[in-house]
Amino acid sequence: MPEDMLSEWEGYELLENYDIPVPAYRMATSAKEAVEAASAIGYPVVMKVISPDIVHKSDAGGVVAGIEDDAGVKEAFDTISSSVRERSPGARIEGVMVEQQLPRGLELLIGGKSDPSFGKVITFGIGGTMVELLRDVSIRVLPLSREELKEMVREIQGYPLIGGFRGERARDEDVLATILERACRLFIEHDDIVEFDINPLILYEKGACAVDARFLADGGAAAAVLARRSDRMPLNTGLFYPETIALVGASSNPNKIGYALFRNLLSFEGTVYPVNPNATELLGRKVYPALGDLPESPDMVIIAVPAHLVPQVMEEAGAAEAQLAVIVSAGFRETGEDGEALEDEVVEVAQSHGIRIIGPNCLGIMLPHRALNATFDPTSPHPGPIAFISQSGAVITTVVDWSLAEDIGISAVISVGNQADLEFEDFMKFAVDDPNTKTVILYVEEIKNGRRFLNFAREISGRIPTVAIKSGSSQRGRKAASSHTGSLAGSFEVYSAAFRQAGVMQAHSLREAFDVAGLLASEGYPRGRRAVIVTSAGGFAVLSSDYADENGIELIEFSADVLEELDAILPQAWSHENPLDMVGDAGVDRFAKVFDVLIRHQGEWDIAFVVSVPSVTLDPTHLAKEIVRFSMNTDKMVVGCLLGGENMRSGVRLLRNAHIPNFSELEDAFKAVGIALERKSWHIDAFQHPEEHS
Amino acid sequence: MPEDMLSEWEGYELLENYDIPVPAYRMATSAKEAVEAASAIGYPVVMKVISPDIVHKSDAGGVVAGIEDDAGVKEAFDTISSSVRERSPGARIEGVMVEQQLPRGLELLIGGKSDPSFGKVITFGIGGTMVELLRDVSIRVLPLSREELKEMVREIQGYPLIGGFRGERARDEDVLATILERACRLFIEHDDIVEFDINPLILYEKGACAVDARFLADGGAAAAVLARRSDRMPLNTGLFYPETIALVGASSNPNKIGYALFRNLLSFEGTVYPVNPNATELLGRKVYPALGDLPESPDMVIIAVPAHLVPQVMEEAGAAEAQLAVIVSAGFRETGEDGEALEDEVVEVAQSHGIRIIGPNCLGIMLPHRALNATFDPTSPHPGPIAFISQSGAVITTVVDWSLAEDIGISAVISVGNQADLEFEDFMKFAVDDPNTKTVILYVEEIKNGRRFLNFAREISGRIPTVAIKSGSSQRGRKAASSHTGSLAGSFEVYSAAFRQAGVMQAHSLREAFDVAGLLASEGYPRGRRAVIVTSAGGFAVLSSDYADENGIELIEFSADVLEELDAILPQAWSHENPLDMVGDAGVDRFAKVFDVLIRHQGEWDIAFVVSVPSVTLDPTHLAKEIVRFSMNTDKMVVGCLLGGENMRSGVRLLRNAHIPNFSELEDAFKAVGIALERKSWHIDAFQHPEEHS
Repeated sequence: MPEDMLSEWEGYELLENYDIPVPAYRMATSAKEAVEAASAIGYPVVMKVISPDIVHKSDAGGVVAGIEDDAGVKEAFDTISSSVRERSPGARIEGVMVEQQLPRGLELLIGGKSDPSFGKVITFGIGGTMVELLRDVSIRVLPLSREELKEMVREIQGYPLIGGFRGERARDEDVLATILERACRLFIEHDDIVEFDINPLILYEKGACAVDARFLADGGAAAAVLARRSDRMPLNTGLFYPETIALVGASSNPNKIGYALFRNLLSFEGTVYPVNPNATELLGRKVYPALGDLPESPDMVIIAVPAHLVPQVMEEAGAAEAQLAVIVSAGFRETGEDGEALEDEVVEVAQSHGIRIIGPNCLGIMLPHRALNATFDPTSPHPGPIAFISQSGAVITTVVDWSLAEDIGISAVISVGNQADLEFEDFMKFAVDDPNTKTVILYVEEIKNGRRFLNFAREISGRIPTVAIKSGSSQRGRKAASSHTGSLAGSFEVYSAAFRQAGVMQAHSLREAFDVAGLLASEGYPRGRRAVIVTSAGGFAVLSSDYADENGIELIEFSADVLEELDAILPQAWSHENPLDMVGDAGVDRFAKVFDVLIRHQGEWDIAFVVSVPSVTLDPTHLAKEIVRFSMNTDKMVVGCLLGGENMRSGVRLLRNAHIPNFSELEDAFKAVGIALERKSWHIDAFQHPEEHS
Repeated sequence: MPEDMLSEWEGYELLENYDIPVPAYRMATSAKEAVEAASAIGYPVVMKVISPDIVHKSDAGGVVAGIEDDAGVKEAFDTISSSVRERSPGARIEGVMVEQQLPRGLELLIGGKSDPSFGKVITFGIGGTMVELLRDVSIRVLPLSREELKEMVREIQGYPLIGGFRGERARDEDVLATILERACRLFIEHDDIVEFDINPLILYEKGACAVDARFLADGGAAAAVLARRSDRMPLNTGLFYPETIALVGASSNPNKIGYALFRNLLSFEGTVYPVNPNATELLGRKVYPALGDLPESPDMVIIAVPAHLVPQVMEEAGAAEAQLAVIVSAGFRETGEDGEALEDEVVEVAQSHGIRIIGPNCLGIMLPHRALNATFDPTSPHPGPIAFISQSGAVITTVVDWSLAEDIGISAVISVGNQADLEFEDFMKFAVDDPNTKTVILYVEEIKNGRRFLNFAREISGRIPTVAIKSGSSQRGRKAASSHTGSLAGSFEVYSAAFRQAGVMQAHSLREAFDVAGLLASEGYPRGRRAVIVTSAGGFAVLSSDYADENGIELIEFSADVLEELDAILPQAWSHENPLDMVGDAGVDRFAKVFDVLIRHQGEWDIAFVVSVPSVTLDPTHLAKEIVRFSMNTDKMVVGCLLGGENMRSGVRLLRNAHIPNFSELEDAFKAVGIALERKSWHIDAFQHPEEHS
């Protein structure tokens, strides 16, 4: 048994200190003592070996349950002694624990662990021996309110076993919430405890009892993890709008990053100063030997020189009164200990001068609305409403190239690099302050200070829709992430829980992320999940129902009023239910009339999907115009699904220009809306049309 | 209790007839008889009320378990009588059943139901009260071999509970397979049984016992369902290549379907005869008053006249010795009883002349390799390798339009309509015989004769990759399908099981289906799931691992030989594991060298994903050429993932021309391969490159 594992009775004592019920128990070192203990406790009892050398007591034959009388106790004492001696020779037997045997009940689990990014995390779920098979748990980052703990309870799949199922009576959910609260408090108040498991916690119709508890204590490590980083200075997001930029390491060699950077900076609307001690002129511009030689203070310094020169450049940047440094150079923390020391040195120099850092080991930043491409990626995106903040440079070059093909507009691209100073949450703060940004997408491999992220994101995500893609869901993926960024990524599930708690929506792929961001940049958060599907294509009506069902989107039943009005304008063969299939020969006028009914009854729904396909009877431009009118006359979410290719292009273009989202693959529309609906407490925020933001 | 429900002891008797173990049991009508029964059986016992009026015995207080002695039996008899009288007043109590109480064991479930399309279906899974929560079952259409039944057992998530888990001993899997076999035989041999549940079947380390069994018998309905359709004549697929086509209902009115059809047929390379009694000339062609007036027999007659005229036209088609009729007209079975009668009449006339029918109520067919568009969709697809067979016309027009935008080639488009004569499986037979078709996609709402489909598909899918999209996964979806096609769709899960048994791959969306079809049309089935990911983009290496993991694709560990060869050619910072990340500055030469290593060691892997992104150091055309060389030098599956947009276009085009699949969204690649790998027994077929097909 590892030294830092609390023994079973130490665990029980800890639980008792927090008023978490445990069975009656006593220690015994002889059969006689065991009999006395059992009589005091009352039959039936369980007996368990106590040995510092045995972790899995059952496997060693060290547990006997269902003991009914004194004779049974004696027999059990002998059985345990001989089994343990046989199966674990050499194990020290300190005695046995005699414990009240509890009646059967629902076996639950409460667990805690310390995540390297987010700190203490709690797990709740179905317990017993099925845990690993069922994996039916909810996870949250601490601290949590009682209401949030109740949510955790209700969100597991097996909740009906607690709340009452197939005629069984409900169990004591109130006591469960209280025990969860106490377990959280215990975990928070004990810095030295890094992990624990109460499994099973037996829940009854009245009351509950923790039957087995395992606590792992590790004073040093835990404190180190939790206090790893102190809070940074708050960011002045005005720094992101430089008037003057200096590029240190500007180069005339087309194979060098300093060349690509300079070429990209030529389109910037402000002033750019190339700096290089070995050149005097570059692409027709004057080159300065050092930052100290510039005619004015640069607002932003971009550094693209070998790593070992960066501390010196940072000193000079400080002397030149720069405020923000973008360190594109690699060769820092990601390369090992020496690089880490160098990175620390650079940060120290920067802090002494009050300079904030993006990077190092990053691609740089792009602000298309200001014609700023301060990266070495030759492609620049179109200006638009989405900020993309990424921990991978390759993901950025891909997204930028793809955004042009898909006609997606971008407000900012930020490559976070090693996050030596500014981190994800700082860039999110920038995004929420930026007037051009309507939604934010994060590509995350590792968040360094989870708790700071959680606090920032919680505040920000209510003001601006934020979508994250987190890589590393596979074990193997986690390994790759660690070899890639030189850092241990936290577990995927904890990130998912933290995103959820922070109101950050989680996407599964880049396409999904941009689908959701595009939807919310135009339509804002939906007020609710009540949806209507309007179509003239029977096949897609069926598929729409399927996709709605899979993505938690509720298809409303039409009210009698709505049905009556629809009957008056639709041919008899219409579906008479939701999805509203107005039959294949529908022209645009039929859609328009249906939109009018839905506008009149917009109190009955939150989201309308308009699904249409290439058809000789339907002009897509005309239909798109009616969809625009529909959208303008409701404050609900209207989602276009003009499916197909060239035949629908004119309509799709018209929708795009009117800032109405369109999806050319049906499933994508429902997935994007589903992800938006999963956002925790979206229903608390008032529905915001984007113009209402900032 | 419904009249056709077998009583508990009738169920036990039925099980005993098939040597399926049940507990010892006896009937008793008095406390005295109950005591005698219990003594004969041996304690402990369970007692259950017998009443034709009570379905849920437990809820009525009609069950007492754990009875240990004679006194307990008497007490239980009284308790049951009074509880039932109190909770179900008026229920007839015929007596009690006294039953051996079995020791605890693993509770499993065997169920059977009759599906309207596929007939008798069997379900196996974790049983007990958790069934509805866990939904951990496997489903198959009968009949099944013992090997297939064993597969069912192994495929549930809870299988470790059977096979041995956390140190528990394995349970009696052999007896379980035998009991499953016997239950299947029982179900098959009893036409009158339409549904049954054995829940729980208790499984021990040695032996098993069925503790509760419910059989629903319904002689008439079952026989009717199962014998609904007799087998049809085998199809001569040569019919699909007409030389002469007659269009009955050709029209000069651009708002009529007969106009659109005729305009499309003008590009056909064979002869087209427009037929219309009210016209003499149409778009410069001579119009014939009736089929009897044509100068030769038409091979194919396309019918686009009002429904009530179709029987007469069919008579004339028979007289003119046509062989195949495509009935585009609507107004048949989908409209109700009258339409159904009309449809039956048309089929009867056709059969009397030996004419096969596509439709009615269909869009028609397209054969791009023969420039034949016999539909009223104005858009024609490019010739290519994929046959698309669809139960929805709207889905067809969408797919055709979208295929042009995505540059996807099509060998045939068939709209199945009401399937009055030719059905999905006939069209699949055509596809497998068609030299231009390499893969088949089905869009399915309802399969009329599931068993015939299963037999055909099983035979065909080994010769040609077949992908199906089945709509109606949602309950509501099922409702919409029924209102749409005028038929009751079978349950989604049974279709999934049947597809799997038939080797038909199932996709979830049209894009997924075309992704899989495109992949297999070029690369054939993979020989196995051992994969290598080659990339220079760290971020995508991590995401690739995630997607591989989610889609059942196994990333191999590199052998010592491979590692050594890679170390010799790659910079030190390469990932040293799979995904093979050769670091961001990789040029094409580095990819080429890695391909050489993988070619030399192609025995160690089955699938290679080459993931690349826009980068200044990488020319996509050059990389694509190396991927082509890589593919040509292995017989394994090579999947291109050139991600991004315009910057990669030249490379993507080059891959497409070389018939190497490329995916511009990373997840799509892994999903498509994952779906291909899910195909049952793909590993039995030899790996087929497409040219080896037909």
